Amino acid sequence: MEESKSEGAAMAETGLTHECGVFGCVAAGEWPTRMDVAQVVCLGLIALQHRGQESAGIVTSEGTGKQNFNVHKGMGLISNIFNNDAMERLRGNLGIGHTRYSTAAASEVINCQPFVVHTAYGPLSLAHNGELVNARALRQQVHSRGVGLSTHSDSELITQTLCLDPPGGEGERPDWPGRIRHLMALTPLAYSLVIMDNDRIYGVRDPYGNRPLCLGKVLPEGADAASCQDVDVEAWVISSESCSFQSIGARFVREVLPGEIVELSRDGVSTLGVVDRPAGRPPAFCIFEFVYFSRPDSIYEGQTVYSVRKESGRMLWRESPVEADIVSSVPESGTAAAHGFARESGLPFTEVLCKNRYVGRTFIQPNTRLRKLGVAMKFGALSEEVAGKRIVLIDDSIVRGNTISPIIRLLRDAGAREVHIRVASPPLKHPCYMGINIPTKQELVANRLDSAQLAAHVGADSLEYLSVKGLVQAVRHGAKTKEENSGYCTACLTGDYPVRLDW
Amino acid sequence: MEESKSEGAAMAETGLTHECGVFGCVAAGEWPTRMDVAQVVCLGLIALQHRGQESAGIVTSEGTGKQNFNVHKGMGLISNIFNNDAMERLRGNLGIGHTRYSTAAASEVINCQPFVVHTAYGPLSLAHNGELVNARALRQQVHSRGVGLSTHSDSELITQTLCLDPPGGEGERPDWPGRIRHLMALTPLAYSLVIMDNDRIYGVRDPYGNRPLCLGKVLPEGADAASCQDVDVEAWVISSESCSFQSIGARFVREVLPGEIVELSRDGVSTLGVVDRPAGRPPAFCIFEFVYFSRPDSIYEGQTVYSVRKESGRMLWRESPVEADIVSSVPESGTAAAHGFARESGLPFTEVLCKNRYVGRTFIQPNTRLRKLGVAMKFGALSEEVAGKRIVLIDDSIVRGNTISPIIRLLRDAGAREVHIRVASPPLKHPCYMGINIPTKQELVANRLDSAQLAAHVGADSLEYLSVKGLVQAVRHGAKTKEENSGYCTACLTGDYPVRLDW
Amino acid sequence: MEESKSEGAAMAETGLTHECGVFGCVAAGEWPTRMDVAQVVCLGLIALQHRGQESAGIVTSEGTGKQNFNVHKGMGLISNIFNNDAMERLRGNLGIGHTRYSTAAASEVINCQPFVVHTAYGPLSLAHNGELVNARALRQQVHSRGVGLSTHSDSELITQTLCLDPPGGEGERPDWPGRIRHLMALTPLAYSLVIMDNDRIYGVRDPYGNRPLCLGKVLPEGADAASCQDVDVEAWVISSESCSFQSIGARFVREVLPGEIVELSRDGVSTLGVVDRPAGRPPAFCIFEFVYFSRPDSIYEGQTVYSVRKESGRMLWRESPVEADIVSSVPESGTAAAHGFARESGLPFTEVLCKNRYVGRTFIQPNTRLRKLGVAMKFGALSEEVAGKRIVLIDDSIVRGNTISPIIRLLRDAGAREVHIRVASPPLKHPCYMGINIPTKQELVANRLDSAQLAAHVGADSLEYLSVKGLVQAVRHGAKTKEENSGYCTACLTGDYPVRLDW
Amino acid sequence: MEESKSEGAAMAETGLTHECGVFGCVAAGEWPTRMDVAQVVCLGLIALQHRGQESAGIVTSEGTGKQNFNVHKGMGLISNIFNNDAMERLRGNLGIGHTRYSTAAASEVINCQPFVVHTAYGPLSLAHNGELVNARALRQQVHSRGVGLSTHSDSELITQTLCLDPPGGEGERPDWPGRIRHLMALTPLAYSLVIMDNDRIYGVRDPYGNRPLCLGKVLPEGADAASCQDVDVEAWVISSESCSFQSIGARFVREVLPGEIVELSRDGVSTLGVVDRPAGRPPAFCIFEFVYFSRPDSIYEGQTVYSVRKESGRMLWRESPVEADIVSSVPESGTAAAHGFARESGLPFTEVLCKNRYVGRTFIQPNTRLRKLGVAMKFGALSEEVAGKRIVLIDDSIVRGNTISPIIRLLRDAGAREVHIRVASPPLKHPCYMGINIPTKQELVANRLDSAQLAAHVGADSLEYLSVKGLVQAVRHGAKTKEENSGYCTACLTGDYPVRLDW
Repeated sequence: MEESKSEGAAMAETGLTHECGVFGCVAAGEWPTRMDVAQVVCLGLIALQHRGQESAGIVTSEGTGKQNFNVHKGMGLISNIFNNDAMERLRGNLGIGHTRYSTAAASEVINCQPFVVHTAYGPLSLAHNGELVNARALRQQVHSRGVGLSTHSDSELITQTLCLDPPGGEGERPDWPGRIRHLMALTPLAYSLVIMDNDRIYGVRDPYGNRPLCLGKVLPEGADAASCQDVDVEAWVISSESCSFQSIGARFVREVLPGEIVELSRDGVSTLGVVDRPAGRPPAFCIFEFVYFSRPDSIYEGQTVYSVRKESGRMLWRESPVEADIVSSVPESGTAAAHGFARESGLPFTEVLCKNRYVGRTFIQPNTRLRKLGVAMKFGALSEEVAGKRIVLIDDSIVRGNTISPIIRLLRDAGAREVHIRVASPPLKHPCYMGINIPTKQELVANRLDSAQLAAHVGADSLEYLSVKGLVQAVRHGAKTKEENSGYCTACLTGDYPVRLDW
Repeated sequence: MEESKSEGAAMAETGLTHECGVFGCVAAGEWPTRMDVAQVVCLGLIALQHRGQESAGIVTSEGTGKQNFNVHKGMGLISNIFNNDAMERLRGNLGIGHTRYSTAAASEVINCQPFVVHTAYGPLSLAHNGELVNARALRQQVHSRGVGLSTHSDSELITQTLCLDPPGGEGERPDWPGRIRHLMALTPLAYSLVIMDNDRIYGVRDPYGNRPLCLGKVLPEGADAASCQDVDVEAWVISSESCSFQSIGARFVREVLPGEIVELSRDGVSTLGVVDRPAGRPPAFCIFEFVYFSRPDSIYEGQTVYSVRKESGRMLWRESPVEADIVSSVPESGTAAAHGFARESGLPFTEVLCKNRYVGRTFIQPNTRLRKLGVAMKFGALSEEVAGKRIVLIDDSIVRGNTISPIIRLLRDAGAREVHIRVASPPLKHPCYMGINIPTKQELVANRLDSAQLAAHVGADSLEYLSVKGLVQAVRHGAKTKEENSGYCTACLTGDYPVRLDW
Repeated sequence: MEESKSEGAAMAETGLTHECGVFGCVAAGEWPTRMDVAQVVCLGLIALQHRGQESAGIVTSEGTGKQNFNVHKGMGLISNIFNNDAMERLRGNLGIGHTRYSTAAASEVINCQPFVVHTAYGPLSLAHNGELVNARALRQQVHSRGVGLSTHSDSELITQTLCLDPPGGEGERPDWPGRIRHLMALTPLAYSLVIMDNDRIYGVRDPYGNRPLCLGKVLPEGADAASCQDVDVEAWVISSESCSFQSIGARFVREVLPGEIVELSRDGVSTLGVVDRPAGRPPAFCIFEFVYFSRPDSIYEGQTVYSVRKESGRMLWRESPVEADIVSSVPESGTAAAHGFARESGLPFTEVLCKNRYVGRTFIQPNTRLRKLGVAMKFGALSEEVAGKRIVLIDDSIVRGNTISPIIRLLRDAGAREVHIRVASPPLKHPCYMGINIPTKQELVANRLDSAQLAAHVGADSLEYLSVKGLVQAVRHGAKTKEENSGYCTACLTGDYPVRLDW
Repeated sequence: MEESKSEGAAMAETGLTHECGVFGCVAAGEWPTRMDVAQVVCLGLIALQHRGQESAGIVTSEGTGKQNFNVHKGMGLISNIFNNDAMERLRGNLGIGHTRYSTAAASEVINCQPFVVHTAYGPLSLAHNGELVNARALRQQVHSRGVGLSTHSDSELITQTLCLDPPGGEGERPDWPGRIRHLMALTPLAYSLVIMDNDRIYGVRDPYGNRPLCLGKVLPEGADAASCQDVDVEAWVISSESCSFQSIGARFVREVLPGEIVELSRDGVSTLGVVDRPAGRPPAFCIFEFVYFSRPDSIYEGQTVYSVRKESGRMLWRESPVEADIVSSVPESGTAAAHGFARESGLPFTEVLCKNRYVGRTFIQPNTRLRKLGVAMKFGALSEEVAGKRIVLIDDSIVRGNTISPIIRLLRDAGAREVHIRVASPPLKHPCYMGINIPTKQELVANRLDSAQLAAHVGADSLEYLSVKGLVQAVRHGAKTKEENSGYCTACLTGDYPVRLDW
């Protein structure tokens, strides 16, 4: 067990990298309960594993005022980090967990979340999904109070900011909700937080609602959800995505509102207030949660992510139809949109590529000839489906544009007559400062080539993106929220950031 | 690095387990060549990883008469076993590799293949896919010659049998082909072998052709396959499945025939003979290679496995139609058949389940309540696709019958009106003695419940299997071989074994 | 790579555990130099490995104002933590390192030193040997300023205290020496510190000089130390013990004085001041550094630890002579004293026990019968040396008294006629609050049994300790410092602590 | 868990490497017993760890005719290989174990012993200490019978030779003792073997007795060895060295005779015969077991190895006296001889070097300057003992002569006036073909420099070796065997091999 860091971190080399997932659980009723909180958190995190595969951690509290937490963190996949030994040590009636994305650098145990800090009032633990747009200014502010920071992480920055008295603040026991409000005044986005005190968890979503956060409840086995009273609830859970509720047998309750602070305790869930945005500013929920990040079965605004993706495929056909024989997708990223495209166009959907699930991170460096094969190691063409066909291939997004070209070659080698690319999202052109790892402007192919040029570059017969308007329409199409209460961050597509970035 | 074994091995607890994959490569032309043989073998094995994830190994020879091989083996996934250091040590102009299935017991480095044996004539290496039906008798025969065996593996048994002079045989240099023919006379099936001598590789398929084996060639970059002469070939390759050729940029040449012995040397590929079956006995190619084991893009009898699966879905509709709104599958096993079923029936195909790719082997033992969730950890229902629908759910096969029930519950919880199960293969009722790890008769649900009883047991509105006849028709439908030259082992379905099992 | 902690840590189960070792190095002259600073630090730490085997770390700085450090830490022995990869990343012109003692709990990467903290003025790194007697009060003081602490370590506590402005302090660049003086005013002992700023290292020894710290210099190869000018120095080094200088080819310069702050920069070493003790209070150098902790070839007060131990053996004979045939020791702890005892008494020294160097931490739990053998696994009796002899066996110290008894039995089994125990230090009776892990009062056998009772308890014919006065005389015997400038902490023997412990 | 081998193995770079250790245990009386055989074997092996640190293994049998053994092997130190899980699986009433020496190459699990082979008569397991002088001829003989060998190890060669019927041999159950005698006729040396059948262990020592082997017995707790009848024995043990008996609480019974075959069963120990040497040939016990390999507390010919080493020091003084102030040794190898030298000469023994126990295999490659320090990393001079002194430094042997030179420099730097080297064994000049890894003739410094030249080369004031005659006298001095029944292999010193080496 060792770790090394060069603090000036290198960027990840892949496309978009997911960010993080947070999860929390408080057993309801009298403590100690028979509910195994650490297991619930662990299984909840496994359902959020697509949001980050670098490291994970769980912190539990017995909630008895005993001044310590139980902590287990590690590098790698959750299923490798948590074994029975760890689970047994993670006793507690409440707990929070975190799973973190993977970048080449800064992969160290010290940066694993949840972050634990010891304060005058006992331990506090925090897990964060997002990125503070004004982290630099906030760090200076903390430093100027004479406080050192042992990591570069926003989590430590947030906890130290919470510890430092808000101007004018004093007193015996800390007013954590007040301090959270103070923090929210200092930094507008982006954050979904779960914060654990001795005996309660605070869930916080930034005023713009940039990152998702939702509430669920665990009912007794065999309970009928409809008739069930809250008195029967076994545990309250809070999670980045609702997909994790299915996997622990919990029911989805609702999304946490933009700017809302909720408190989960053994007595239930209550709202401690909602922090407003500046007048006239709409919410700015990351639209790429629909396009790419979230699991298809997660629910936002009353609809599954899957149905939005399918709708974006329908919209894509309407905007950019093409004469073809079959519709297909790059597995598994564009399949939902491809089904929508097929349904709307009437063209048959057919699988054309077979994916090798075992091509992982290989430690060998193939020679040039073999390296060129690249994608062929990952996919095999289903020759009989492809031979002689005009194919529309749907992808969810194009970042660097270097994976689509060998796929097209593979299909042409297998006898495809035409290959038309349709991308179920608009061109990616701008960096994200709110938690998504997007390559530099230079590396984003859409800043160098328009769609016609890109088609020529990758060897496609045609290539079209979905428009921003079309994407928003696809999102709104099935949304159960009123239009005036929702809004999306499309900064990476439009350059229109939710707040000014001149900190 | 350590290993432990209780030699009385426990059976694996999962359903069917894949068997093994073998691969070989000989660089053509003058040696030493610039072809990196070990890398070709490694990437070829990665494409066969679905055939075994327990362990893997590569053995290379420089082919110069120097009396040693380079060997690297290990437990786990290929991408973790082979790093640059290992690759550098695996110098050579020819090499063979093996990837092995996973069972709980007998997981040890000593059983990793390829097996290497030192003989009077230098080292010999061998990799085996299959299982000798008369292993016990053959072991006794070897023992009775005063030879001990250091493992329980067929590979060692085969190599020692090859070493022991065939009755009457004598001479300076061993007649390996003659000894291989002798071996084939001693044991009828099941084996696909790659055997490496100092400077050549023998590929052997048992007379019944029970396990697959096929030939390919690596052409120079940019070569036009059609016009290319064999003089230009860079390397000859031999593999369990043709899918591995795509991933190394090689061309599929043909399948090795049942009973055929081929020799791969720097000078090309030649047939050293074909061993006959007893008069009137047809080949017995494992039909489950089509149903379950092989990768969809692999080619047998001139057709992709994918197209056979799709055809079996069409046949399934014809045999067991049902009134429904949508057709779907348990990802990813039944998808090809589901597409065939949808096309034939005219019903729309829709995804209804989302799979969590990160639910692997978890080391925690959840409490009863959470364990019951089981499959819910692995799948999430796509509620909007399911609500109010009559669903036909296609699965490729049913072994123990314990995974389908919680999936149906998940779908009903998400609002499915009806759930009809259609299984794209016949009921599994008999053990396999030819290399597939099938549960005991007791555990095979088809020996306890008929389809109506099973429907009730798992909570389906109906459940039907494909017939044996229907499956064979689906396989024959697109086959490019003449019917009289092909034949399938359906023993696990019918109890009709290719040879008498009274050894 | 993972870690788990139960924050309420369990105590170590062994006897006295060593504390920690610190090391620092600044390359002299123009930067960048060809001096490989990280390697010097690493080899220096290896020579301090006896002071802690749990974890180690190195932090380097290029000293160019670039605002980051290179960090590598890990669990286990230094030789396993630092490989060539790590060394290459640890570029720099100056660096500090730390090796840490082993306890069962709190073994985590997060607690590895050196601690790195980011401040308004750039990164600061610190390594600490010792324990703050008023840590609790100091933590409260830090907490009351609104600062959270992410670990329970003194290192973080000290760095945060250094960061927080001293009352009245202000300004652009921090006056680290001033802040260090402020820290020293807040906490009297026990600490030897190496603190690294961007381009210099501060060495600090607490006013009582409780923990050792000394200075050395690396001369060019072949340099004659005597004639050498400081202008020729290649690097300045600072270390817990002078033994580390031999192992990197450096020359011992002098000990850092109690209360002294030294600064090591590329320009040389200078004293920034010496903080006084309260009037009349003598230094309190831990006398167990002589008895047990330090390596025999380390030098304090102008004499080797080895010669002090030998002298303590002479003193022991004078205080407690005994009629016997041979003098021996428990290898390897009491050998120096045994040689002194033999020389003073005229009795021959003979080895009587042979040590198995490979009995380490075994992971098997032997059954009762084998567990009773215990010490016999570790030692074998040299029967011919023992048979029929009256033996005086010298041990350096007795803590729990449970290892001496089976050794005596082993000797008697081998034919020893009499076994007399002589302990080269006084009875251990009191806890240490200054960095040594001493068992509880209950566990210290000297609190339960006097020497006669203990002799009976362990089966010795007689057992005598060295007196406190005798030990101090042995230490003073060869000391090159004036008596009025030296003084020793004998708290664990006498209960007489250097400061009041009522924080 | 993986392994790689280049079969043409590199030689180890160190001096002499130890060979191997073997151990066996059979529980006496009715089976199953409460004796934990695997633990006894494991602890026995730990006491033999100095004979090999590369890998180890244990094989147990329940002795009930159930046709399998329990096996656990691994790379590294015994304490890391065997944990409680492994111990639990190693059920059995009898078992054998092996610990193996370390060389850079051929470090693989496949070569770990004990070797297990499955025969017509059930499993057989074998552990071997030594090296067959005619291995090549024996391999050809086995190969010519049509038997392949899967390793290059003598162990497999021996087991296969045992399996192959001896000419004329036939029958139902194998006559293992007869086959062992046949083996002994085929190969004269060097081997000490423990061979386990289903329910008994055979111990075999080659006719020349080149490698040690001895018998012991475990008595009930509290038993008086003298009065104890064999009926009370709890277990019989057999081991390379008697030091292992102390560590498991067993009593030394006797050495196995040269050429003797002993059988250990639940009923006791019996001799199955003693194979003679050619007429007039004396035994050839490796004299380096006394000089270097064995643990000091092991007993051969009725005397401890320690006492022989001490006697060789006395002899050394008589042969090569020198005027000096103190006698010392390089810890820990020459200490026993140094004590003998001191006693005989009347000069005082003083320690002059302090050893860093933590300098292990470092993974960093120091730059030239630091590499030159080499030995200084490992030793520190005890300056006060050395300054102004004329030192006689005793070493046990000199192989390459490259470690003594930096030690002399270290002593001179610390103020030594003169340094005289005395080596307690004769010059090493010839290779060993009987199990010891000795560098090539070129590398043995004694083949290049005589003692005067070597003294100059290493910077000593004088350097003398013990004569061969003196060494043999030292060995004979305390031996309890009659001179005509003992004899020593001194081939590495004299070139006089026990048998002709023209195979």
